Amino acid sequence: MRFSVFQPPQAQHGSVPTLFYLAGLTGSEETFATKAGAQRLASQLGLLLVSCDTSPRKTGIAGEEDDWEFGSGAGFYLNATQPPWSKFFRMYDYVRDELRQLILASFPATPDRLGIFGHSMGGHGALVLALRNPTIYRSVSAFAPICSASHCAWGRKAFVRFLGEDTADWAQYDAVELIKAAQRQLTPHILVDQGLADKFLAQGQLLPQSLEEACTAAGQPLTLRQHSGYDHNYYFISTFMADHLNYHAKALAAVR
Amino acid sequence: MRFSVFQPPQAQHGSVPTLFYLAGLTGSEETFATKAGAQRLASQLGLLLVSCDTSPRKTGIAGEEDDWEFGSGAGFYLNATQPPWSKFFRMYDYVRDELRQLILASFPATPDRLGIFGHSMGGHGALVLALRNPTIYRSVSAFAPICSASHCAWGRKAFVRFLGEDTADWAQYDAVELIKAAQRQLTPHILVDQGLADKFLAQGQLLPQSLEEACTAAGQPLTLRQHSGYDHNYYFISTFMADHLNYHAKALAAVR
Repeated sequence: MRFSVFQPPQAQHGSVPTLFYLAGLTGSEETFATKAGAQRLASQLGLLLVSCDTSPRKTGIAGEEDDWEFGSGAGFYLNATQPPWSKFFRMYDYVRDELRQLILASFPATPDRLGIFGHSMGGHGALVLALRNPTIYRSVSAFAPICSASHCAWGRKAFVRFLGEDTADWAQYDAVELIKAAQRQLTPHILVDQGLADKFLAQGQLLPQSLEEACTAAGQPLTLRQHSGYDHNYYFISTFMADHLNYHAKALAAVR
Repeated sequence: MRFSVFQPPQAQHGSVPTLFYLAGLTGSEETFATKAGAQRLASQLGLLLVSCDTSPRKTGIAGEEDDWEFGSGAGFYLNATQPPWSKFFRMYDYVRDELRQLILASFPATPDRLGIFGHSMGGHGALVLALRNPTIYRSVSAFAPICSASHCAWGRKAFVRFLGEDTADWAQYDAVELIKAAQRQLTPHILVDQGLADKFLAQGQLLPQSLEEACTAAGQPLTLRQHSGYDHNYYFISTFMADHLNYHAKALAAVR
């Protein structure tokens, strides 16, 4: 597994708050580093940035690279239970445990000041990881996330092959279902930005309204910002990146 | 031919200073837009940004895509004189005339506040275009430019096929040779940033010292900044992008 790290100047003098970024379908550990334009502000705020790949690669599973919506580049940040995927596709544990521990052991990341964010499929991953692990991830945000993976075409297509037919298992990887099941606040706050010219929004892949309704019903604080004219790409992300970095920096600074 | 444009908010209310960016070998009109991280500051400074492709594409010339150093993605911003390239590979005229006029006709670009900059092969192109056309380009800068194309392997390989054997023709597309021939100031000022961990610097492809010597001898103002630890990629460029945008904005604001 490959990952990318940006260390701010402040990391030369001590440990610093750290953000994990999860990319979307077809992305890699380079996507965020090359296209999001986050480093300049992160160097000012003193944030260490980590980005990982979106799936295992070259596992030898037949057809793993044949579909941009499933398999290579499309791991959906879950632990697959169905063969042959279950042997390799364990991105949930990888991000939460293996990668985090490697980062903490190798870089000056403050263990109790970790945040997570992502885009699209990576926004889904960030929300799910933060909602299920609030003592690990102290701040969370997302750009155009897949809010309810078990209720959209992308998620259903992947979940049936990764997780099998039982939709109860799917709910563990669906941010909206997690909030509905908890019926309480799971994380201090969620920030989501969504472009209104996003074709995947129109296709029903993202479902931010379901997230908003679930958060309202459960008392989960959410700021959902909707932006006319913006689509699903990294121009959208880079436009609002500073807001997300400032949001995380403030939240992580407030961790007592 | 494809190009990309970023319009700052100020362009909604009147014409604005405009920068043309020329990408390096293997680049396209998307390289700058996706990787340089220039839009945020350009939106504050009120700069319109234009980036073009690095060569014609799909011309039908045999082998045009076979070599990353020559042909598709490697037009060297010159007017080829040798068949079969001379029919299509006329990037010098394209950038200076066709693209500029199209931009001026289609976007609120102030005609007498145009600057040009670029990277590597595109830095070569920016320097040559600015030195030969100081009344068109009022400011110029470059990241790790090929400073003396006729005296490096990249340039020699391309020039002999594009321009033929006569090195007198090559000198028209060599920034150092243009300054040496003029023996006077050709443009108000040149800003160049160069990373000292750049492998192409070590290979002798870039030759910034030749530029510095020629500028000193000719009285051409130059700021050559050399940065330890930086290599040839867009992390280097995005790190110093703000300095270049501020430099151009100030120079173009001063045009009377």
